[in-house]
Amino acid sequence: MRTLEEHRAAVLSLVAPLAPVEVAVGSALGLVLAADVVAAVDLPGFDNSAMDGYAVRSAELAGAGPDHPVVLPVAGDVAAGDTTRHVLAPGQALRIMTGAPIPEGADAVVPVELTDGGATGVALHVAPSAGLSVRRRGEDVRTGDAVLSAGTRLGPGHLALAAAANVPRVVVHPRPRVAVVSTGDELVPPGSALEHGQIVDSNHVMLCALVEAAGAQVSGSAHLRDDARAVRALLDDLPGAPDLVLTTGGVSMGVYDTVKEVLAADGGVEFAKVAMRPGMPQGCGVVGPSRTPAVTLPGNPVSSFVSFHVFVLPALRRLAGLDPGADGAFDAVAEVAWPAAPGKVELTRVVERDGRVRPSGGQGSHVLGALSAATALAVVPAGVERVEPGDRLRCLPLLGQDRDRGR
Amino acid sequence: MRTLEEHRAAVLSLVAPLAPVEVAVGSALGLVLAADVVAAVDLPGFDNSAMDGYAVRSAELAGAGPDHPVVLPVAGDVAAGDTTRHVLAPGQALRIMTGAPIPEGADAVVPVELTDGGATGVALHVAPSAGLSVRRRGEDVRTGDAVLSAGTRLGPGHLALAAAANVPRVVVHPRPRVAVVSTGDELVPPGSALEHGQIVDSNHVMLCALVEAAGAQVSGSAHLRDDARAVRALLDDLPGAPDLVLTTGGVSMGVYDTVKEVLAADGGVEFAKVAMRPGMPQGCGVVGPSRTPAVTLPGNPVSSFVSFHVFVLPALRRLAGLDPGADGAFDAVAEVAWPAAPGKVELTRVVERDGRVRPSGGQGSHVLGALSAATALAVVPAGVERVEPGDRLRCLPLLGQDRDRGR
Repeated sequence: MRTLEEHRAAVLSLVAPLAPVEVAVGSALGLVLAADVVAAVDLPGFDNSAMDGYAVRSAELAGAGPDHPVVLPVAGDVAAGDTTRHVLAPGQALRIMTGAPIPEGADAVVPVELTDGGATGVALHVAPSAGLSVRRRGEDVRTGDAVLSAGTRLGPGHLALAAAANVPRVVVHPRPRVAVVSTGDELVPPGSALEHGQIVDSNHVMLCALVEAAGAQVSGSAHLRDDARAVRALLDDLPGAPDLVLTTGGVSMGVYDTVKEVLAADGGVEFAKVAMRPGMPQGCGVVGPSRTPAVTLPGNPVSSFVSFHVFVLPALRRLAGLDPGADGAFDAVAEVAWPAAPGKVELTRVVERDGRVRPSGGQGSHVLGALSAATALAVVPAGVERVEPGDRLRCLPLLGQDRDRGR
Repeated sequence: MRTLEEHRAAVLSLVAPLAPVEVAVGSALGLVLAADVVAAVDLPGFDNSAMDGYAVRSAELAGAGPDHPVVLPVAGDVAAGDTTRHVLAPGQALRIMTGAPIPEGADAVVPVELTDGGATGVALHVAPSAGLSVRRRGEDVRTGDAVLSAGTRLGPGHLALAAAANVPRVVVHPRPRVAVVSTGDELVPPGSALEHGQIVDSNHVMLCALVEAAGAQVSGSAHLRDDARAVRALLDDLPGAPDLVLTTGGVSMGVYDTVKEVLAADGGVEFAKVAMRPGMPQGCGVVGPSRTPAVTLPGNPVSSFVSFHVFVLPALRRLAGLDPGADGAFDAVAEVAWPAAPGKVELTRVVERDGRVRPSGGQGSHVLGALSAATALAVVPAGVERVEPGDRLRCLPLLGQDRDRGR
């Protein structure tokens, strides 16, 4: 029997960061930089006003104060976006807007609130120091600075900085493409009239949602009956040229475990029992003429969901250019006692609140109610047969299952 | 001058949860339920096997043990998805797969690992209790149970439960649609050759990314020059029939503040100074013949970014059917001292690590470097002029700016 870590390493050995592509900054949200972003301009790009006010020569206002303003003629306006090169003549002021270039000759801006706001002449009630309300060219960023480093997952603030630095395109790892294949004669789509022995295929909806929630995309999906020819045909023509194939079902010890039968014959996929609960029957390898990496998940929805978090998510992270290590894993304290599988890692579906966790309900591998109510997986090590209140456990957050319950 | 809370209340008063729509479970990831999901079937839908093994009458195996098996003829196979109603005759066993219906007459399943795995006859090495490896119909969910409650933001596990309960469509609040309008003569798209006084429009990219990261969608976007006619024309034909309009720029005290001029004349938008830093000049109201809710953000990128988190995000949450209260706000301890604006709420861009925060860099409202490096906003109350090490501060996480820096 493999350990969870051994199987995760086997899955990770199949994948590498996807070859970088160049995309527009407006399309890069959530993608991971494959190269540093280097500023193409200084930020600010020119000395500019931090306030709406009046550009002045500070020395000329040395004596000004609240009760004894200096009055200067206003020679004109400088707007943000004004591309004229204004010059401030001695003894004058120029009305200036926030962000507008500081005119040649000026060395300070008196905010409008400290003046009478005049349009042709202005009374200035303060003696500004040189540099008052002036943002200096390049004081934030200089041309050639690496403003974002490779490996950064791009959020809105990063994109703002890249855009402001006049970088229209960035080099990123593309979003991983995942084909989702559910198998099983007993499965029918949601909303079907169920015959005796049939169940609804919830894995298909769930895995597509997990792929999306992980920031990857579903390249294509299929449901197959337990039919070896259908499985073989799919391998020859994987839906949507995926970077990774996920299958569910057909990998246990049953005589109808077609996925296992076909992929084992194909030779590229290795099947293993993994010392974990739920999720023991696992497999991974490469499939089809394309030798595409594949992970075969158990057909049981709870096992499949848990296996996705511990094996597939790290693989998707590596493909996307991230550290595959557990994203957002945290420590929490058990609030109650619960039993764990002897000799296996137990992945308990728990609700976390203020650093404390308790099982979200029945832990049978068929119990979807407790799965849906959970916010995390508590990782109970293989040596522990019973969690006691106060035990500290490593926990993995569940994708898209926060505590947002509204109103 | 308004308080931050007063302005947030003004913004929130403009919006209500969007009218519910019905969507397929496969399209509902991240949306918020507007009605409970009621199970259409029992889960499990029938008594079924928890293991691959042999269905038996437990009483017939009373004497079995590791060294003295009971041997029974195998009368056939029961597969998952088999819609035949099998009956187990006395004195026989049926080979059964995980998830397959328990045959009439059987009351336990002996896992294949505890047998010799025979196909025509089987040696069973254990005396099972009645119910061993049997999952009972309805033990997880009963038809008519409300399995998910209104207000739940749908994650992969929720969708799996709805699908498994044979519910093909769910009633949700739709994704809010947001029009993004940046204004300013000085702004040019990323990658432009910059003339004197021009700057790159980073707000457009940033706000579109923030809208997406908040789970809403950009209905349309535009960049306008500081031209009253263009602003008026836009109001008459908002891009993409949005639920909310965001503008940036043109709302300060400058003489070229066209957005303010047009919207103030239109009468539906109220402008206010808000006691916060950055982000003082704010406005909100309704615009155009459609009376669409609108928030006018300052043109400064840092102010705009901060204002989005404190005013727009709560509005998007309410539109989406969520509690508008701060999502994921947390307490953290200041690691260092820093000054704060007297009489205003200071929203310091900070890096959070293990419950401690420090400013991410220069806090000038033009400093995008520090914005991009931040992971949260620390909310320094209006009465505090200096944060001291050890002070406990409320913090708001930044959308899409986690600490994922890879490799």
